Amino acid sequence: MFVKYGMNSGFSSLASPAVLRRQQFLIKSLGGYSDITHQKRMEAVKCLSGGASLEADAENVLRAITPSLDPTRHKGQAGKIAVIGGCREYTGAPYFAAISALKIGADLSHVFCTEGAATVIKSYSPELIVHPILQESYSISDVDDEGRRNISKKIISEFDKWMERFDCLVIGPGLGRDPFLLECVSKIMTHARQSNVPMVVDGDGLFLVTNSVELVSGYPLAVLTPNVNEYKRLVQKVLGCEVNDQEAHGELLSLSKGMGCVTILRKGKSDLISDGEIVQSVGIYGSPRRCGGQGDILSGSVGVFLSWARQHILATERKPTVSPTNPTVLGCIAGSALLRKAASLAFEHKKRSTLTTDIIECLGQSLEAICPAS
Amino acid sequence: MFVKYGMNSGFSSLASPAVLRRQQFLIKSLGGYSDITHQKRMEAVKCLSGGASLEADAENVLRAITPSLDPTRHKGQAGKIAVIGGCREYTGAPYFAAISALKIGADLSHVFCTEGAATVIKSYSPELIVHPILQESYSISDVDDEGRRNISKKIISEFDKWMERFDCLVIGPGLGRDPFLLECVSKIMTHARQSNVPMVVDGDGLFLVTNSVELVSGYPLAVLTPNVNEYKRLVQKVLGCEVNDQEAHGELLSLSKGMGCVTILRKGKSDLISDGEIVQSVGIYGSPRRCGGQGDILSGSVGVFLSWARQHILATERKPTVSPTNPTVLGCIAGSALLRKAASLAFEHKKRSTLTTDIIECLGQSLEAICPAS
Repeated sequence: MFVKYGMNSGFSSLASPAVLRRQQFLIKSLGGYSDITHQKRMEAVKCLSGGASLEADAENVLRAITPSLDPTRHKGQAGKIAVIGGCREYTGAPYFAAISALKIGADLSHVFCTEGAATVIKSYSPELIVHPILQESYSISDVDDEGRRNISKKIISEFDKWMERFDCLVIGPGLGRDPFLLECVSKIMTHARQSNVPMVVDGDGLFLVTNSVELVSGYPLAVLTPNVNEYKRLVQKVLGCEVNDQEAHGELLSLSKGMGCVTILRKGKSDLISDGEIVQSVGIYGSPRRCGGQGDILSGSVGVFLSWARQHILATERKPTVSPTNPTVLGCIAGSALLRKAASLAFEHKKRSTLTTDIIECLGQSLEAICPAS
Repeated sequence: MFVKYGMNSGFSSLASPAVLRRQQFLIKSLGGYSDITHQKRMEAVKCLSGGASLEADAENVLRAITPSLDPTRHKGQAGKIAVIGGCREYTGAPYFAAISALKIGADLSHVFCTEGAATVIKSYSPELIVHPILQESYSISDVDDEGRRNISKKIISEFDKWMERFDCLVIGPGLGRDPFLLECVSKIMTHARQSNVPMVVDGDGLFLVTNSVELVSGYPLAVLTPNVNEYKRLVQKVLGCEVNDQEAHGELLSLSKGMGCVTILRKGKSDLISDGEIVQSVGIYGSPRRCGGQGDILSGSVGVFLSWARQHILATERKPTVSPTNPTVLGCIAGSALLRKAASLAFEHKKRSTLTTDIIECLGQSLEAICPAS
């Protein structure tokens, strides 16, 4: 599919810089996207006002966007993901997100974190490429303001050398809330947006975004994946009210619109997804275990699936074989469905002792059951 | 086989210094190698001009060069490999290369890397011997030119103490592109060449070699294992043109000749191997997964197999039971075939979630299927 894309767009996917591919994508697919689905969306929104359920056909989405495996493809063509997170306290979350991306089928998975976190994350798995470039305030406590500005510039410049290679950034797993670190990550997000690199924002990335909504507002390639508390703070900040579960669909639609149509995946008993035009839900039964880390699997998975969905839309020349057609929404549907399937499978075997690592081990088998590799 | 070699050559393979063994090898086998196979090579080259396929009899090569296991043998006789790589960002790649060497049957596997990388690589496995001797520019940023020269000398001298013990160096997995580090590795390569230590060059080692072709040019014990991009850069640099896939065999032959007959394994749908005289291909079906790290398995494997091939040629007194007879080509054929078999086996079980670690776990079983240990 990636090869086809290279052919269809007149580029060699290897030779063309990633930024050109992204611009090509925006010009070609976003234009078409509005045309094709306008009517369907209007129907969906009408449906919503009547309170109808909008359960996504998640298995069909997974099958449509997951690329076929082809021996002529090269390393990197099935996806290159970068997780930005990992600090003094947190090392598991960025690892879970990054390894999940690989287990689903991405070719390369990077982590950008602090130096101390890097040693640990590297030791979890030799499969990840870990960049120890972030800094927290405590490690630069004796540096003056100018020194800090220089450190910040160096961090951004080191990240910029890599950014164009990535198909998606996952920002937030285990990021922490250190002010200096978050300031650097804000700049990284601004640069990523300028280069049209998609981003999935979770965990402490949502803390950052809730306080600085302009970082993602109006960016169609941003996905937010809030849990119940993160969602509550977003609603308070953007809509200026409390969450009303009786109006869940409409409220999510308003929140997304209020943020300039970024895509939001509200995690819950059923996951609700909106891009400000439609709402979809994924209610496949998962697992009753709520061990920490499942959100990190989700953010890493959504990163991969939204990259694949974008490639699918390009490869089919704006005639995607699936509905809806917004790649960020497709990525959320697929990520949500796969996590639920894998969690269910893991729980079947491990019951109360199910951990995030067990669920990650079930990602491959769960995807295979829906969408066999050969 | 190693014992036979010791007896036949009049040395005890334990008592004689490795350098003497290598000189003996060069005098005995390289001389014979030209005589024995000249005719066959000419036939092969003729064959090439007609565009015929030159699929290697890879299983036969694997069986011929893999040493039989004999309780009288000592530690080290089945191969001592050193991987040079591992820096601030990369720790997985050198680990994959080094552990693959052991999993195939080498007795000892060393890694030479930076201090930070060493801690992590050691933590991946207690089976490896890891030397934290390399330095990157950032860790010596406050050192003046003379200080840097002294650090460089110290690094080379530390490496030199070990070098003669190794049957093969694998240069490049996770090496990075730091200028100071690459300068030290250039000197290591020059010393290794002076001592006739074979070397497999991959990853960032190929970046180094493309910029300094003289490091390997004309060295018959050098193997390069470029992927699509690395090959493209080599062709541009050495042949001054773009890659032409219609003339893949002839072009590879020219590239190898242009570099003084170093052996090149061009990775692709079929792997193509040339030493400037013949071209062989290995097209055994592997896996459609292109997860990062498979190239590291290959470089580590080729390191072991080429050492075994050299021993096989010595042990059979220049009458090897296999064709072709250039040990670097035999090493490439065996390494390529085994990786493909193992990748295929891993993919059978893990499908899209297949990672490099899974393939490494299949190396033993794949070799056993072709060439049972007893």
